[in-house]
Amino acid sequence: MNNFIPKQNIILASKSPRRQQLLKDLGWEFTILTKDIDESFPDYLKREEVAIFLCEHKAKAFKDILSDDTLVITADTIVCLDDLIINKPEDAADARRILKLLSGRQHDVYTGVCISSKDKMISFFVKSSVFFKELSDAEIDYYIGVYKPFDKAGAYGIQEWIGFIGIEKIDGSYFNVMGLPVKEVYEAVLNF
Amino acid sequence: MNNFIPKQNIILASKSPRRQQLLKDLGWEFTILTKDIDESFPDYLKREEVAIFLCEHKAKAFKDILSDDTLVITADTIVCLDDLIINKPEDAADARRILKLLSGRQHDVYTGVCISSKDKMISFFVKSSVFFKELSDAEIDYYIGVYKPFDKAGAYGIQEWIGFIGIEKIDGSYFNVMGLPVKEVYEAVLNF
Repeated sequence: MNNFIPKQNIILASKSPRRQQLLKDLGWEFTILTKDIDESFPDYLKREEVAIFLCEHKAKAFKDILSDDTLVITADTIVCLDDLIINKPEDAADARRILKLLSGRQHDVYTGVCISSKDKMISFFVKSSVFFKELSDAEIDYYIGVYKPFDKAGAYGIQEWIGFIGIEKIDGSYFNVMGLPVKEVYEAVLNF
Repeated sequence: MNNFIPKQNIILASKSPRRQQLLKDLGWEFTILTKDIDESFPDYLKREEVAIFLCEHKAKAFKDILSDDTLVITADTIVCLDDLIINKPEDAADARRILKLLSGRQHDVYTGVCISSKDKMISFFVKSSVFFKELSDAEIDYYIGVYKPFDKAGAYGIQEWIGFIGIEKIDGSYFNVMGLPVKEVYEAVLNF
């Protein structure tokens, strides 16, 4: 028994193995439930608002099924270069285009998190800035060929080879770039 | 065949499972060889000089056994609070004392790395600053009780529970705090 484990049942609504691992690393037990939802969003939203909009949208899909003592955690991570939101790449050529865009400069990663119960919802976002070194064409092609980052916003996983060899520095949380700002989730759930 | 794998045989001279995992994550093959060496150092050394001194000292223990096409990687991580070098804790009470010292403030982590062959040696250090939130006594006691961080400089492992819940931010490389600045090792070995 300790005070660092939530009293509620926890549902993590994410297919991401990184998010699942980060929550496991807190020592928490939880159930994984996912629902396919539409990930489109209104054009007028600012970048951090997109992350919040999408995680709240995911949360609403669970509202009706929650028992009194259950919380659901939803999250959405977006990658931005200046005002441009960088989506998942369509294919290898698109991944190459995106990584060349990110090479040698800073971009921002926003993860929106929503924690909700039957009758309460809180949400927040955490921003991190990531600085890539100048990636060589050979490094980009090797990474795409071996790691096939087609399911990843920004065409890279920070916890993969390119994250080890290519990142000059991160301002903010490494875990946030992985997809879950785990310290903030810990505090928000325990204080829910 | 690719250009991102060293041509030489690589020896990693470290018992640390974190260092071993980080090198594995580069996709490199290597042999682990360790030798117990005296870890004392002259008093007049500055903090980054201590990390360099110790990794070079470890490297020298391998010099005579290396074949022409073999590199050995040694590393040493030290934790500093202002000018104080924080060692491994002696027991739970000492770990508690150290974590209370680190709580709510910044400390610095230096990892010295030495890459050496039979007839050449290069070394460098990387510095990261780590900012702990105010840790509660209950959080400190829980961490020490469950994770027993007695083999860790600074009495904590950044990749453990306390790293997930307790770190406000890191200036510099997360991997460096884990014990190996993997991007710099990658570049130094491939350019050796």
